[in-house]
Amino acid sequence: MDIYEYFRKKQEIIERELRRYLTWNGRFPEILAEAMSYSVFSGGKRLRPILMIAAAEMIGGDLEDILPFACGVELIHTYSLIHDDLPSMDDDQFRRGRPTSHRVFGEAVAILAGDALLSEAFYIMAKSSSERNIDPIKALRVIYEIAEASGSRGMVGGQIGDITMKASELDQSSVEAIHLDKTARLITVSLRAGFILSGATEYEIDTITRYGNNLGVAFQIMDDLVDAGKEKKGINLVHLIGVEEARKRAERLIADALDAISVFGEKADVLRELARFVIARRD
Amino acid sequence: MDIYEYFRKKQEIIERELRRYLTWNGRFPEILAEAMSYSVFSGGKRLRPILMIAAAEMIGGDLEDILPFACGVELIHTYSLIHDDLPSMDDDQFRRGRPTSHRVFGEAVAILAGDALLSEAFYIMAKSSSERNIDPIKALRVIYEIAEASGSRGMVGGQIGDITMKASELDQSSVEAIHLDKTARLITVSLRAGFILSGATEYEIDTITRYGNNLGVAFQIMDDLVDAGKEKKGINLVHLIGVEEARKRAERLIADALDAISVFGEKADVLRELARFVIARRD
Repeated sequence: MDIYEYFRKKQEIIERELRRYLTWNGRFPEILAEAMSYSVFSGGKRLRPILMIAAAEMIGGDLEDILPFACGVELIHTYSLIHDDLPSMDDDQFRRGRPTSHRVFGEAVAILAGDALLSEAFYIMAKSSSERNIDPIKALRVIYEIAEASGSRGMVGGQIGDITMKASELDQSSVEAIHLDKTARLITVSLRAGFILSGATEYEIDTITRYGNNLGVAFQIMDDLVDAGKEKKGINLVHLIGVEEARKRAERLIADALDAISVFGEKADVLRELARFVIARRD
Repeated sequence: MDIYEYFRKKQEIIERELRRYLTWNGRFPEILAEAMSYSVFSGGKRLRPILMIAAAEMIGGDLEDILPFACGVELIHTYSLIHDDLPSMDDDQFRRGRPTSHRVFGEAVAILAGDALLSEAFYIMAKSSSERNIDPIKALRVIYEIAEASGSRGMVGGQIGDITMKASELDQSSVEAIHLDKTARLITVSLRAGFILSGATEYEIDTITRYGNNLGVAFQIMDDLVDAGKEKKGINLVHLIGVEEARKRAERLIADALDAISVFGEKADVLRELARFVIARRD
């Protein structure tokens, strides 16, 4: 299997679905629709939705049932990037080579576009699952798990750590705890959602959680390695232990991630390739 | 029935539940917990949760089943106040006599506290309904209706109108359309949630929607009347048509709200009193 081809095909499906959900219908301010679309369609890799789909497919889940949740997670990821870039947070001028949302639309509209994307994610997930052949109990579980992974006990909690903690006061495990909250939880819950919606056992869900947490922290370290040398705010393992040690640590985490899914045998080949894809990236 | 006594008793129940949900468990940054609680426990009237409970009770709903949704809507209302007060939005220094969140915790933490409250609302609603004797299909419907009323096609859309439109370019019906989105939708969806969760018919749900939309716009006009004379940003009917006409318009809307619920007879007495309570307020 060519993982790049797999990735590209799934990206196409996600793009199409996101366009369908975000096509402006005239029922709300156009400037808000523009700001939402500007950030959602800005060349994101769609890693989280693809992980959700890959997890579901490996245990025989139905792609159509997964898509609203896959899109929901991508909208949540996008809102978090808009808010992270704000002047009072990381104060980033560019993201993926384009001016950040607040530079294009102003700070107020950027904040509100993020807020709207977060609400829209829950709207799409709850609405679609009431319209499709999805067990509503499972849908509710996925919704609250995604809400938890996004909020104070997940991504937002990690972001608070990122902006309020002093790097000099942290050791490696505290840095990784922040990475776990800020980055890994949303990745992990994407995988869990794919499993839960496809009828996985609790043991299988625990297993994919181990894979996701290790992959997620490795992903954040790789992100920091790619940016090594650039001026970058926030907690950063590369600054703490150096490029070589950070790379070794990411490789160790990926090995642990692969170890977790060994029980699934060749069914987990896509997840294996995706993990190697994360560690190999240079962009 | 003494409506003040009714209001006070329901407020107590809401306060207790909110405290239970927001008690810090050590599993996320303390500063975030502090910022969330600072705004949630700042003397809010709890109008939206009380309307939800009153709606449910009038058609025989179970208070315990309603509470997680009542709290969820209050958290969403609170997040919207934190973000509305931000320097890039209304730039408010005080709310309910206390310094606004961003003045106490800084802009970054204030934005993140709002974000966390929005996620927490969906967490509480989805989690609790999976744990209680609530029809999961109804729970999903209420969740997506609340998400819709909070986002681009509701509250956030209205806030965008409020900050991007020029008052001088608007006529009365455009101003009221913004009030409808910004203020009334969350009030209406609170009432709808109480009805949906308690097994109301679609006709009854439509009826309560008419009550809610009229009440909500009247509520916003009363808010602007209370603040008349103060420097206040944003779209404002009082500035457009004057104090006397604005008061008449609010009274007209309340009359329409009362007319909508006349079909419910004396069962709707609480909602009737609540509507009069809104129009009578001076604070």
